[in-house]
Amino acid sequence: MTRFALTLEFDGTPFMGLQRQPHGPSVQESVERAVHGVTGEQAVLYSAGRTDTGVHAYAMRSHVDIAKQIDAFRLMEAINAHLRPDPIAVIACEEKPADWHARFSCIERSYQYRIANRRAPLTLDRNRAWHLAKPLDAEAMHRAAQALVGLHDFTTFRSVQCQSASPVKTLDRLSVRREDDYVIVETAARSFLHHQVRSMVGCLALVGMGRWREQQVAEALAAQDRQALGLNAPPHGLFFVAARYPEDGA
Amino acid sequence: MTRFALTLEFDGTPFMGLQRQPHGPSVQESVERAVHGVTGEQAVLYSAGRTDTGVHAYAMRSHVDIAKQIDAFRLMEAINAHLRPDPIAVIACEEKPADWHARFSCIERSYQYRIANRRAPLTLDRNRAWHLAKPLDAEAMHRAAQALVGLHDFTTFRSVQCQSASPVKTLDRLSVRREDDYVIVETAARSFLHHQVRSMVGCLALVGMGRWREQQVAEALAAQDRQALGLNAPPHGLFFVAARYPEDGA
Repeated sequence: MTRFALTLEFDGTPFMGLQRQPHGPSVQESVERAVHGVTGEQAVLYSAGRTDTGVHAYAMRSHVDIAKQIDAFRLMEAINAHLRPDPIAVIACEEKPADWHARFSCIERSYQYRIANRRAPLTLDRNRAWHLAKPLDAEAMHRAAQALVGLHDFTTFRSVQCQSASPVKTLDRLSVRREDDYVIVETAARSFLHHQVRSMVGCLALVGMGRWREQQVAEALAAQDRQALGLNAPPHGLFFVAARYPEDGA
Repeated sequence: MTRFALTLEFDGTPFMGLQRQPHGPSVQESVERAVHGVTGEQAVLYSAGRTDTGVHAYAMRSHVDIAKQIDAFRLMEAINAHLRPDPIAVIACEEKPADWHARFSCIERSYQYRIANRRAPLTLDRNRAWHLAKPLDAEAMHRAAQALVGLHDFTTFRSVQCQSASPVKTLDRLSVRREDDYVIVETAARSFLHHQVRSMVGCLALVGMGRWREQQVAEALAAQDRQALGLNAPPHGLFFVAARYPEDGA
């Protein structure tokens, strides 16, 4: 068996998330079916992150174990051919040692959340950004966000379905900046709780709209109570950007 | 009657172009229907450029004349409400003098053409870029493009359906640059012939792939013959970026 790391880009719109689901299409199901088409094998896809319905990825990192003799480039090309017409692409593929694991070896995940902040509805960016018509104060959002950086109990920002053993996580980075009509939130951590990014973005948006004082984000965190959550941002503005591994360096 | 300038953003994928067509949906038809929904009037939409099936716009400039008393902001909001669910949005709206004309007053049109230059198929950018898997030499493309800048007979780069009185046009700018996996072509002129941008991009792509020598672009131009065209790039990589008017300044 050879372990291949796959870097996946996908438009999450038509999928019920990355993970295989009993009742609808998933990225995992499509990729596993494509791998089966190439190799005849029932390989299982493991990934650095789990993404919800409608969440996108620029560079999800995953792996599969394959018995068939095939080099990484040909495997990438063949999986891509079998993935058509699904909006999923393998953008990089390389052999890895058998102890390398897309999920367990990953030391940092990063996400970007895009808010389109203008009156007009979205056209080219429909399903690729959260549309908020009310003007946002991105600087206030950035300041408020800093209360979440560091080691905290993120119970407030955790879905009730979250399966993580502990709500205590270290958030490495959470930044907010304006780019023309967009407000871009970027965040990185070793791992995130279920819905954590969307829950943090939702509360920051309340600050940006002036409905929450900046201090309320810190207060919501301190409450350690899901009821203190202001708003969960919708999935279609969220993009999985990168997964980092020890061999990648800093 | 009040003349309103509308700035339109649209995803061209579902439309047979901007101009009204007898046999399919068009941006013009959708906007005129929305204006009728708001005002009850049969206003005609005039636009700075004509775009083909599948061509997109970040900021097409158009105008309509409306008898109903309504301010520009409310008109924009109401048209946008009536445009749903079409992927067209009015992103700006302002009153203009009656002698201002979206098409005839325009002194410069600019376009961007996006080529996705990588092995993997497109996902998030499907229908929003031309996918070319073979590596392109963007610097060679840029050098070759400079032969087209200036006053020339562009017969080679003109569709047989072109209705322009003359094939002689002045091309103000044609630049090519690489941005990661993308090759971006930007061009501006007072006006363009039908298919001119796509025809120029198609020939530059041949240079980028090494199938044409750089000099062949100049030779194709000098031939003044549509048969000398190497390749017409597909519409879905093309974006109308801006229209400039005398009052906009330089």
